[in-house]
Amino acid sequence: MKRNIASARINIESSKLLKELNDSLPFDKELYKEDIIGSIAHSKMLYKQGIITKEDFLAIQKGLNELLEEISSGKIELNEGDEDIHMAIERLLTQKIGDAAKRVHTARSRNDQVATDFRLYVMSNNLEIARLIKEVIKSFLNLAKRHTTTLLPGMTHLQHAQPINFAYHLLAYVAMFKRDYERFISSYQRNNYSPLGCAALAGTPHPIDRELTAKELGFEEPTINCLDSVSDRDFALEILFNIATLMMHLSRFAEEVIIWSTSEFGFIKLSDKHATGSSIMPQKKNPDIPELLRGKTGRAYGNLMALLTTMKALPLAYNKDTQEDKEGVFDSVKTAKLSLMVLKEMVDEMEVNREKMEQACKVGHLSATDLADYLVRNLNMPFRDAYYLVGDIVNRAEELNKDISELSFEELKELDSRFKEDVVEVLNIRNSMNARDSFGGTSTKRVKEQIEIFDKWLSEIES
Amino acid sequence: MKRNIASARINIESSKLLKELNDSLPFDKELYKEDIIGSIAHSKMLYKQGIITKEDFLAIQKGLNELLEEISSGKIELNEGDEDIHMAIERLLTQKIGDAAKRVHTARSRNDQVATDFRLYVMSNNLEIARLIKEVIKSFLNLAKRHTTTLLPGMTHLQHAQPINFAYHLLAYVAMFKRDYERFISSYQRNNYSPLGCAALAGTPHPIDRELTAKELGFEEPTINCLDSVSDRDFALEILFNIATLMMHLSRFAEEVIIWSTSEFGFIKLSDKHATGSSIMPQKKNPDIPELLRGKTGRAYGNLMALLTTMKALPLAYNKDTQEDKEGVFDSVKTAKLSLMVLKEMVDEMEVNREKMEQACKVGHLSATDLADYLVRNLNMPFRDAYYLVGDIVNRAEELNKDISELSFEELKELDSRFKEDVVEVLNIRNSMNARDSFGGTSTKRVKEQIEIFDKWLSEIES
Amino acid sequence: MKRNIASARINIESSKLLKELNDSLPFDKELYKEDIIGSIAHSKMLYKQGIITKEDFLAIQKGLNELLEEISSGKIELNEGDEDIHMAIERLLTQKIGDAAKRVHTARSRNDQVATDFRLYVMSNNLEIARLIKEVIKSFLNLAKRHTTTLLPGMTHLQHAQPINFAYHLLAYVAMFKRDYERFISSYQRNNYSPLGCAALAGTPHPIDRELTAKELGFEEPTINCLDSVSDRDFALEILFNIATLMMHLSRFAEEVIIWSTSEFGFIKLSDKHATGSSIMPQKKNPDIPELLRGKTGRAYGNLMALLTTMKALPLAYNKDTQEDKEGVFDSVKTAKLSLMVLKEMVDEMEVNREKMEQACKVGHLSATDLADYLVRNLNMPFRDAYYLVGDIVNRAEELNKDISELSFEELKELDSRFKEDVVEVLNIRNSMNARDSFGGTSTKRVKEQIEIFDKWLSEIES
Amino acid sequence: MKRNIASARINIESSKLLKELNDSLPFDKELYKEDIIGSIAHSKMLYKQGIITKEDFLAIQKGLNELLEEISSGKIELNEGDEDIHMAIERLLTQKIGDAAKRVHTARSRNDQVATDFRLYVMSNNLEIARLIKEVIKSFLNLAKRHTTTLLPGMTHLQHAQPINFAYHLLAYVAMFKRDYERFISSYQRNNYSPLGCAALAGTPHPIDRELTAKELGFEEPTINCLDSVSDRDFALEILFNIATLMMHLSRFAEEVIIWSTSEFGFIKLSDKHATGSSIMPQKKNPDIPELLRGKTGRAYGNLMALLTTMKALPLAYNKDTQEDKEGVFDSVKTAKLSLMVLKEMVDEMEVNREKMEQACKVGHLSATDLADYLVRNLNMPFRDAYYLVGDIVNRAEELNKDISELSFEELKELDSRFKEDVVEVLNIRNSMNARDSFGGTSTKRVKEQIEIFDKWLSEIES
Repeated sequence: MKRNIASARINIESSKLLKELNDSLPFDKELYKEDIIGSIAHSKMLYKQGIITKEDFLAIQKGLNELLEEISSGKIELNEGDEDIHMAIERLLTQKIGDAAKRVHTARSRNDQVATDFRLYVMSNNLEIARLIKEVIKSFLNLAKRHTTTLLPGMTHLQHAQPINFAYHLLAYVAMFKRDYERFISSYQRNNYSPLGCAALAGTPHPIDRELTAKELGFEEPTINCLDSVSDRDFALEILFNIATLMMHLSRFAEEVIIWSTSEFGFIKLSDKHATGSSIMPQKKNPDIPELLRGKTGRAYGNLMALLTTMKALPLAYNKDTQEDKEGVFDSVKTAKLSLMVLKEMVDEMEVNREKMEQACKVGHLSATDLADYLVRNLNMPFRDAYYLVGDIVNRAEELNKDISELSFEELKELDSRFKEDVVEVLNIRNSMNARDSFGGTSTKRVKEQIEIFDKWLSEIES
Repeated sequence: MKRNIASARINIESSKLLKELNDSLPFDKELYKEDIIGSIAHSKMLYKQGIITKEDFLAIQKGLNELLEEISSGKIELNEGDEDIHMAIERLLTQKIGDAAKRVHTARSRNDQVATDFRLYVMSNNLEIARLIKEVIKSFLNLAKRHTTTLLPGMTHLQHAQPINFAYHLLAYVAMFKRDYERFISSYQRNNYSPLGCAALAGTPHPIDRELTAKELGFEEPTINCLDSVSDRDFALEILFNIATLMMHLSRFAEEVIIWSTSEFGFIKLSDKHATGSSIMPQKKNPDIPELLRGKTGRAYGNLMALLTTMKALPLAYNKDTQEDKEGVFDSVKTAKLSLMVLKEMVDEMEVNREKMEQACKVGHLSATDLADYLVRNLNMPFRDAYYLVGDIVNRAEELNKDISELSFEELKELDSRFKEDVVEVLNIRNSMNARDSFGGTSTKRVKEQIEIFDKWLSEIES
Repeated sequence: MKRNIASARINIESSKLLKELNDSLPFDKELYKEDIIGSIAHSKMLYKQGIITKEDFLAIQKGLNELLEEISSGKIELNEGDEDIHMAIERLLTQKIGDAAKRVHTARSRNDQVATDFRLYVMSNNLEIARLIKEVIKSFLNLAKRHTTTLLPGMTHLQHAQPINFAYHLLAYVAMFKRDYERFISSYQRNNYSPLGCAALAGTPHPIDRELTAKELGFEEPTINCLDSVSDRDFALEILFNIATLMMHLSRFAEEVIIWSTSEFGFIKLSDKHATGSSIMPQKKNPDIPELLRGKTGRAYGNLMALLTTMKALPLAYNKDTQEDKEGVFDSVKTAKLSLMVLKEMVDEMEVNREKMEQACKVGHLSATDLADYLVRNLNMPFRDAYYLVGDIVNRAEELNKDISELSFEELKELDSRFKEDVVEVLNIRNSMNARDSFGGTSTKRVKEQIEIFDKWLSEIES
Repeated sequence: MKRNIASARINIESSKLLKELNDSLPFDKELYKEDIIGSIAHSKMLYKQGIITKEDFLAIQKGLNELLEEISSGKIELNEGDEDIHMAIERLLTQKIGDAAKRVHTARSRNDQVATDFRLYVMSNNLEIARLIKEVIKSFLNLAKRHTTTLLPGMTHLQHAQPINFAYHLLAYVAMFKRDYERFISSYQRNNYSPLGCAALAGTPHPIDRELTAKELGFEEPTINCLDSVSDRDFALEILFNIATLMMHLSRFAEEVIIWSTSEFGFIKLSDKHATGSSIMPQKKNPDIPELLRGKTGRAYGNLMALLTTMKALPLAYNKDTQEDKEGVFDSVKTAKLSLMVLKEMVDEMEVNREKMEQACKVGHLSATDLADYLVRNLNMPFRDAYYLVGDIVNRAEELNKDISELSFEELKELDSRFKEDVVEVLNIRNSMNARDSFGGTSTKRVKEQIEIFDKWLSEIES
């Protein structure tokens, strides 16, 4: 009878259903590269520590490198006969080089092996996602640089609030993406430690050198406690949370793009490359991309919640439940990377309708706060009193069917005799935008300053 | 230039990234059967209403039936050239029968088509999952019937509380599964209405008969408002929630099986068919199945949360976000079905260690409440006073290193002179179990009554 | 030393922190009414079964009714000296009537007591929420009746798609709310069973009559298995899910109201009663109500996820974890009820801007699908061919800076000589809306039919 | 008619329901201290920048400090007449000092005010939670130091796997808590930036100094972009996620404590201070504390999911939805702090049953892996072959009803003649534990090394 690797004492055939429930190869084959790299590093260490012979190591290394090439190129297809990617590669290596293959697993368990593979995957994707975020930031900054004087109605509650410029709005997203970037990098730094050599849960009696394998694999150092290392999935939860937050940011921008693309707003127009039609309505151009970015927030949240649930109340150390950690992470990582690439392309190619944006600024009495501030500064009115007076002026403007920026000096004087002629300048929309000149504010000067700050930060993280 | 179906006005090539983000064929091909069945019903109606000719209908029907066979048997592989399953099948049908294929989409939009396909899938899986729950219930009832006198320490807070029998414990799960069954059936009944013919969002000017297609496809009736019908995903949320609750129940049983399988408890032993080993520890037999059942609760919760998130704040009617509805449902449905099948097999084949269970009943003073009840009934003591007296007796038994069920009449009399000899019977564990003879209680008599109630319910739902 | 109720054997003072973590009175006092009603029913049964005397029952009943009045009126404040509401009421009753109070807890445990109280709360709130949904439906129907001919651009992807009427759009929500109503009622029917008398986990040796207490409390029947009954929280999960889905529907309408209230859309105007201002921008009127409805979806989802998480993998029967079931349910119930009342008021008082809605219908070539359908019907063109031709016509209209509904017969004829003069009628927006006359469609006739269906359903559920 | 602050133009009374839905005072009064401190810093800056007079500033400062004292001491009760804490304090200050109070809001909006208050709260609680984690770590280290030679069956899949020591197990949690600590600190550092002075969304025309208020309030610097600053809730999501992960760790330890406290395991005993009883079963002592720690994981997850949901797809900048950010954060913060304090006390006072732990190590063939390693090292057997041989030996031991650590040299020799006498030493449990002497492993030596590493880290973060 054929014996199962990893079941030394179990002599009857496993239930077919158990196999179906249990087998992880269909998804964990994603880790073939990490598994091979990990095994090479482990074997090298075994040889350097005198645990296996040089010959064995060289055979293993050669065999694994061949396998890496054969799987990458599609020469070998990982079929479903094996329980998981680790067993599949051990089997393939044994076919290739015989007994030496059986020595790779010395001083190692599937528990630390899978922890290592998965951590390698997550660490490199932290860096890759951070890199893609940087690319998106560059696109936003590029667009911002062209729009530091483009007026846009700044909104709160989706109601026109104060005039801002379009660059300023884009920079709000740059600020979000900067935090996203920092989160992925911070998570990388906090978790880039090697669990390899932790074995099943308690370490190993073999005279291994975990420092060596850690360095070999690009980890900072080996982890401190092996029991923790085989059951820790914090690094996976962190990337899931960081992706959830990133997708939340994307969903906010997506929502705005969708609203801006309506015929009512008309602030922007997506490239035809990024629009799709309807199977029944021949006139439609639909903003599918931002809708998908927004919709995919759901799966990012769901994957986070799934792993949090799975990890709840698990006793130490390894439990099979933990096998559920991978599919969600793969899915979130893939979603994040694709979403960032799509977002960049969309931003690079969308058309901005300056005229529509600026026209919209003349609706909604956007300079009302300026008027209140004017009253405080020039007439030394307490803010709350000014605030109520402006409320009355706005009501009057509405009766006249005008925006307050269109009120004449005469009309204003009628409402309060203390107004001086300079009040008209204060009500001008562009002046209003440029008046908000405090640090972090929307004036063109301040916006250029912000662009400089972000550019400087970019050049620092790239150096 | 090749034109996109569903993009009548878009004349430049779609972005490669958009396609990657957008294409749903890799997962929605799961719906090929529902799509074909739906199209046959629709075409039949179009013909009966005089909208297409009989010849066209017959060609369409024949072509679609052939396609169904070819895809089912693997003769045709759905490759990734198409945007989604609906476009793939329209293209294949056109290759097969030419122009007639182009008439299938008359009076239909992708919006109602996908809503129909997906609803057919969810409805039939509601029934299939309900059927599998019924099978699990039968297995639990079978096991229960063999254990109506098998003592088990009933626990609260994982501490021994009162003696029960094993059947009684199993019946608690039967009660849960009964509610699960009822939820799937209730959801089926509430949602088994046909959106077909709702077109894009507003109905169609063609003289269609939605009643006819509804009946043809096994729906109760057509839905009432088409705008709702193309954007409604309540039926999907319901199956996700019902599966989440089902998996929660499974996770509770799984947790108990894992604890019962420890060497400390030893109450049950899983079949070797359902155990796996360790890659490094040759002595291990691990309860992988219950661990996976417990772990997979995570994905069931995550899929629910994902779709809830996606649906939040979507304006009517169809938005591309909704495309995110399927993968999670497919995954939860597959998980639920496989989990139920595995659970049934595990329960059918696990060994129950009666002796260990009964021995454990002699630890923890399980008959303490009986003693308090005795004092209330026989000495007319207020419950709270009896309760405190028993507390003292338990403390005394612990000093004697005995379980209270092992105290002699003499020892008891020393503590309170009012005890009569019949108190010894009251402290007997089996008597204690049988004493709880109220409706729904654990006495063997009441447990048999419960089995009868569940058997009767089963025969009613099967008739 | 003062002894703790519910801790017969624990002789040292509890940790202050444990008390803080453990005490549930600050939130479970919400259940005082249910607790008192439950205890009266239980005592009545104890008396009828001869377990307590008539005198004791009458004293208990009188004392509890007084307490009910004193707590309701605020005469007694439930302070924080007690561990939970059940202990608080037992203590107050003991102060009032002495020893008889101690007999109430005969044949009952806190486990079945809390299960009963909480279930009573959830059941009555299922009915109350259902009632409020019905009120909301009536408001939507009233508004709909006034707008069966009010044109509105029907949207998909937030892009104008086809002309519909405003009533039709409102009826989509009526269809959602109808399902919501059915879910709450279905959950009520599935779970309205009495756990009272289940005691700690195994039933009781006292000759109780669970049927009697069930009827007394308005339950259908007693539950079947007591072990399940004390650990079952399915009814709580169901109300949390049903509220989550309800809030999701509300968030969709809220999103639309927010978008419709922008100065760009201007389709509706909220009553000043439902708008708030800004502390700094005197001109603002903000749609706080729909924003809060949308934002509160978060807590409804969160409360669901919280209880699902808490219940995961809990062994039977009662565990202290379950105490976490209440706050989330109280919060979701309160949120749902308040949200429904607010929504009703908002809908009743909002102004609909017919003109803006109808004008908007002339943007976006809303009758494009009609034109395609015309080609299919009148020229026997396959749908896909018609679809492409219309795509070209739309492109042409855009060149002319016109909506296709504004194209003249001559302009159309130029594009395809087969057009007849009746094509102009087909392109008319109102005709287009009324043309969608299939069952469930948007034509005024069909919309009136839908209103009738919903009205009939309402009168059925109210009879 | 009384005018609403923050509603300059709204002249009819707000709906009672809107007020109920909208008013945040019942929960945001938690922020009174942050609000007052923020307003003092803002006023000081206004004075230093010449925007208000010294007299006004001094009056404001004095008035606010008095209010702080009066609210803290309970002299003033914040009642429900005000919309939120910010308006309440502005009103109280106006009562106290008149017109000067109205000048505090110059160059500030509720948007940046609430963002500042909330951020101050979250930042200081990041530090406070980090401090409490450090205290828990110290308790775990103290306990660990007493148990570096206490044997414990190391488990995987809740099955005995390899012998470890109890200190090693505790250190796994120290490793988790160290990461938790680092996450709270990292989040603090990433988010400790001041939004004050960002005003409504665009900055202010007043010549403010945001640097000054930032320093005054303990922030690192002002934030870069004001539009982002008023809508950013990343800092809130981060603390919710970090608490969710922390509670997940606590739930794992809680689960183990619950299992270890069963009469079957009996590894530990909680102090009576931390146990509670049953209202009906006088003999019970229940581990309520770990059950509540485990159960409260639910609310931590729920609060995270709630805010993620609320933030999804919100357009910039402030929307009323965001008001939903606070209750969940307050609840999670309170839960985390109380849970950590309770955990520390529980660990400090629980009894460890060394004998039970060590006895348990003789069940389950814990030295099986040692035997396999022995075969690899001494007989140069490939690992897989050794693995299968040990599987056979374990089966043989079971036939003899022995643990393999109890097999004699003779019995072993019978199974494989190559065994030498030293194999007996290898099978000894304590030797087996100490044999796992690789870095991070369970040997007493390595465990002491780990304690040193953690102690060193502690002294570094405290210096």
